Amino acid sequence: MEDIEKILNFVVEIEKLKDIYRKTKPVGLERFENSAEHSWHVCLTALMLKDYANDEVDINRVVKMLLIHDLGEFDAGDTIVYAGQTDEDKAKEAAGTSRLLNMLPDGMADEFLELWHEFEAGETADSRFAKAIDRVPPLLHNIHGDGHSWKTHGVTKEKVFSVNQRISLGSKELWSVLRNKLEDAVNAGILK
Amino acid sequence: MEDIEKILNFVVEIEKLKDIYRKTKPVGLERFENSAEHSWHVCLTALMLKDYANDEVDINRVVKMLLIHDLGEFDAGDTIVYAGQTDEDKAKEAAGTSRLLNMLPDGMADEFLELWHEFEAGETADSRFAKAIDRVPPLLHNIHGDGHSWKTHGVTKEKVFSVNQRISLGSKELWSVLRNKLEDAVNAGILK
Ligand SMILES: [Ca+2]
Repeated sequence: MEDIEKILNFVVEIEKLKDIYRKTKPVGLERFENSAEHSWHVCLTALMLKDYANDEVDINRVVKMLLIHDLGEFDAGDTIVYAGQTDEDKAKEAAGTSRLLNMLPDGMADEFLELWHEFEAGETADSRFAKAIDRVPPLLHNIHGDGHSWKTHGVTKEKVFSVNQRISLGSKELWSVLRNKLEDAVNAGILK
Repeated sequence: MEDIEKILNFVVEIEKLKDIYRKTKPVGLERFENSAEHSWHVCLTALMLKDYANDEVDINRVVKMLLIHDLGEFDAGDTIVYAGQTDEDKAKEAAGTSRLLNMLPDGMADEFLELWHEFEAGETADSRFAKAIDRVPPLLHNIHGDGHSWKTHGVTKEKVFSVNQRISLGSKELWSVLRNKLEDAVNAGILK
């Protein structure tokens, strides 16, 4: 098969991300968010918030990372952050991402697979920032959406604060603003 | 208001793109595609097909362009490419994009607004390639989806070939492969 045909088959295959549903609803919508539209949202959010990263980041790498960060979900599905991921989930996601990227012509998969693992590990400045950004929309969805997924999944305020504090690893300023918003949510009674 | 608050308000406002529906259905899905998931899809498609651009492109600019290319649709809605856009539609989209981007802190809007206008004009190497990529998913949706939007909107094969030939302005190789696929669609009777 020609290389360009392989890429077009990949382009069709990744359509499935539009059918993987997450645990929160976009602000103002009554339906759950899918992982494809989420991926767009976090890319644009990262672009706009890049100056708030703790360390200097290569925003183009961050965007690339976020474009592909959910590709492993076809085989594994999305898991709620508060549940934590088992090693088995993680291995499934890695295998899924690798399977998908290996539809691409020789050599193309490697760069993206490395980027995906870098995101997962979250140990570089770029991936710490990308991971922080990835946490923003679900918080905003809950804050502007009556805490719907917190309530459905019985997530306590202690859990929300302790898990999302990780945002400060990528951006202290962002976490400080979001922490205030979460405190407002507690005061408004939507986070208990 | 603090700059970071302005950005977070923008992040919430652009959620609306997830509720703007396009004219084609993602491969394998029974529902129409929204402009947010479409935006993700074309960014990743551009990234994978960058080596097929006619001219050298700055892929990071292309991706940025594609991340924001549909932001004007909140106020104007999506129009089918075969219908053409009136000057009034275009002015509405430009005004909508400008309104949105002006929610951002001073100075941030300009870069993105320029990028949006560059995309619309389609006169640079980056925007010609971005525009070519933007045409790929609707074609694949029809090719893999029994020509659903061609049939619904009564779009003839002559129209499909003449309108999509523009893809060759951004990538001759891509157009050549897609033209073959369209010819297969004609032979299979799904494009008439
Ligand atoms: Ca459009």
